[in-house]
Amino acid sequence: MFWIPIDRSRDIPLIRQVYEQIRTKILRGELQAGERLPSTRELASDLQVSRNVILEAYEQLHAEGFIEGRQGAGTYVAEGAYLEDLNCDSLSFFEDMNTENDRDNIISFRSGIPALDLFPRKIWGKLSQQVCIETPHSIFGYDHPEGRLELRQILSRYLLRTRGVRCHPNQLVITSGATQALSLIARLLLSQGDQVVMEDPVTHEIQSIFSSPGAELCPVPVDEHGMKTDLIPQDIKPKFMFVTPSHQFPLGGTLPIQRRIQLIHFARKADCYIVEDDYDSEFRYQGAPISSLQGLDPDRVIYIGTFSKILSPALRLGYLVLPPSLTERCRHLKWFTDLHTPSLEQLTLARFIQEGHLERHISKMKKVYRRRRETLINALDTYFENKVTVSGDSTGLHLIAEFEDIVFTDQVLDKLLDYRVRVYSVELHANRKGAHQNKIILGYGNLAEEEITEGIRRIKAALDNDIKKARRQMC
Amino acid sequence: MFWIPIDRSRDIPLIRQVYEQIRTKILRGELQAGERLPSTRELASDLQVSRNVILEAYEQLHAEGFIEGRQGAGTYVAEGAYLEDLNCDSLSFFEDMNTENDRDNIISFRSGIPALDLFPRKIWGKLSQQVCIETPHSIFGYDHPEGRLELRQILSRYLLRTRGVRCHPNQLVITSGATQALSLIARLLLSQGDQVVMEDPVTHEIQSIFSSPGAELCPVPVDEHGMKTDLIPQDIKPKFMFVTPSHQFPLGGTLPIQRRIQLIHFARKADCYIVEDDYDSEFRYQGAPISSLQGLDPDRVIYIGTFSKILSPALRLGYLVLPPSLTERCRHLKWFTDLHTPSLEQLTLARFIQEGHLERHISKMKKVYRRRRETLINALDTYFENKVTVSGDSTGLHLIAEFEDIVFTDQVLDKLLDYRVRVYSVELHANRKGAHQNKIILGYGNLAEEEITEGIRRIKAALDNDIKKARRQMC
Repeated sequence: MFWIPIDRSRDIPLIRQVYEQIRTKILRGELQAGERLPSTRELASDLQVSRNVILEAYEQLHAEGFIEGRQGAGTYVAEGAYLEDLNCDSLSFFEDMNTENDRDNIISFRSGIPALDLFPRKIWGKLSQQVCIETPHSIFGYDHPEGRLELRQILSRYLLRTRGVRCHPNQLVITSGATQALSLIARLLLSQGDQVVMEDPVTHEIQSIFSSPGAELCPVPVDEHGMKTDLIPQDIKPKFMFVTPSHQFPLGGTLPIQRRIQLIHFARKADCYIVEDDYDSEFRYQGAPISSLQGLDPDRVIYIGTFSKILSPALRLGYLVLPPSLTERCRHLKWFTDLHTPSLEQLTLARFIQEGHLERHISKMKKVYRRRRETLINALDTYFENKVTVSGDSTGLHLIAEFEDIVFTDQVLDKLLDYRVRVYSVELHANRKGAHQNKIILGYGNLAEEEITEGIRRIKAALDNDIKKARRQMC
Repeated sequence: MFWIPIDRSRDIPLIRQVYEQIRTKILRGELQAGERLPSTRELASDLQVSRNVILEAYEQLHAEGFIEGRQGAGTYVAEGAYLEDLNCDSLSFFEDMNTENDRDNIISFRSGIPALDLFPRKIWGKLSQQVCIETPHSIFGYDHPEGRLELRQILSRYLLRTRGVRCHPNQLVITSGATQALSLIARLLLSQGDQVVMEDPVTHEIQSIFSSPGAELCPVPVDEHGMKTDLIPQDIKPKFMFVTPSHQFPLGGTLPIQRRIQLIHFARKADCYIVEDDYDSEFRYQGAPISSLQGLDPDRVIYIGTFSKILSPALRLGYLVLPPSLTERCRHLKWFTDLHTPSLEQLTLARFIQEGHLERHISKMKKVYRRRRETLINALDTYFENKVTVSGDSTGLHLIAEFEDIVFTDQVLDKLLDYRVRVYSVELHANRKGAHQNKIILGYGNLAEEEITEGIRRIKAALDNDIKKARRQMC
């Protein structure tokens, strides 16, 4: 609806009010050249004035050159009638809003980004349209906070088959990505002064989410096999223990069964939950698939999954598998947070899984990522020989490179940027600082093989030409 | 990926491990009749075992009748091999999961539901697909918490043109519906012991959202023109005042300019914000369009909009217009809540508005709702004559019916359900109970004209046959 205020109590004629306001809108650029104005009949009805008022106002605007158009062919805003700048640049659709990486030709080894150019656009686009056209009317209304039953049923079977996760569809809550799942858990379980056991290092954003309700984080060191469970302090009573057992973030270890059992024993003794974040275990390159921790004790483990790494983070689709005792409270909280996750996207995903596209996509992507991983390991080997140790590379979309003699300070990371390569330090995610200064996280999911090799070449060049030289000069 | 755990340390042959586990999955129904198994080559690669292991395991399963299939044509789970019940009924796609209303043929006058059968499926579906196929790769990655710039730019111009909302695109944060906007405001502004001025009555869920951080609600009575601003207690220092000035929920009044100015004066004096929830003002049937409160004082008013009523609640698309001083903190909070709202849906909506579909849809729906509203008013008049007073009907998707001599207790509402008609009492949303017992909210957005008339007939029948009779017997 085209809207302008009409004030009958003022002694300005209605024609003048309509004329003046449309004129101002055009001058200010609120109505832009080429934009179609409503018909005189429509506008008269919208503003509840006689059609003559609009006809005369339009005539005036036409006479002064603000609008143009012929009888029956519509009325349009004329060119060149725009005066003031509203600081609101128009932007054409899909004008490529590339990130700074593309603009500056920076190669970024940011972790956790899947290959964005290989998103299954055609199938997803087709299924989106089909769902939108074929779904029953009722789907367009308000829905339940836990998400569509169709998706939860398909997901519960998928999780059992591929991850050994044991749950009834009623234990699932579909969330807007894993971040919302983490945020719901924090609000569900944590209050001021509560304790949370966490891996150290661990994604720094997760530390923020859990500490925001005022909880105390109890960091437990991580080695190449994940959390060192024998170092969990025995005197604490945490609300839960947060772990990434399939592929520790960032260090990349896979938690062995002995430590898993230790974790569960501790949780039973302390009567607390375990939160298992299973963010990229679908891509496993070495050894047999690893079962979820959830399957070992479904009443005590809260499992978090996401489609951000296996499909796209832009979808914002994730889920929680909860012990039955927590589901009702979690649904309630989800309802007061955002009611529910968008219904059409849930149904599109359900069809995508149901028709076998998800498993085919994962299988295809695993091959792509396996090649990228090999390229990365080879490049590190070629440029650094035995000066760099690779770890955490059995699974997922990133690995850890440990350098013999480099401390990745902010200055070093900045210097790398001068060489148009961006890497992320492990130290950023460390709770207790100092133990991981010579390690960087190299995400390879969204980099072509040539980019990977070129990126490592740039790191080598930066280190040789500038960073080591600077250090030598300082000595 | 098809997943079964393989344990090389056990002295059970690998063939037996594979065979046993597939057999169990079939017995339990985790693999269902007709489901295709991976090829022997795929499964061997997935499980990191020799292909012979899989060939022999499959042969065994085939011999026992669990699976079937011919060389080169794929291997499938056979019929009738399912034993235990997993309490996980399979559900065919789009099997109509109708609500109890449809099942029991109940006519529900629930408010706030648009006409679900008139959602523009074809256009939305087509645009969804186009966006998915044409958008640049980068859109499939992580995005900014405030939402897509394309949408925010289009929205800021749309809001200025149609609602007199004055904002730069940077002041907009796209949210997952208005509920998330409300929840973000609560977390942004409220702590234990803070005060919030609210209309009384007001949506009971909003009361829960604002009181959950421990804030104290200060109810101000509402009459047929909205909040009685002269009754705002002068001695309080609220964090904000929550109002629905375009169409008060539930009572339906439109706040006159004098009260709007009083509200702003109070906010300036108390140095607090005003939160304007503009949930359905697009559908205005009487009088000239009403400007937003935000346009009068953009630095003090937080404006909440939603596409739930003008398009569909299932999309979960809404937005916040914030004073510049709050935008950064709100983006931060949105990031830690769910990162951002799904990108493809945002772009679909941007195109939908850009191409003029939104305004055409609103204009079309306004005609539909206008007819439904008239049908409802006529039916009330026909069945109740002067025993019912209608109010709050100038705008939106519901109106208020005040009955001369009925108190809508839970028993009365239950009795109406026996007559297969559901209505909602105003009293449910009242903070101070007792003032609105004879009023019900009649939402008409999602009811066909025949359903509206039939629904009112059922109310009449219930009241005449049962409710009044029961009351007479009690006297």
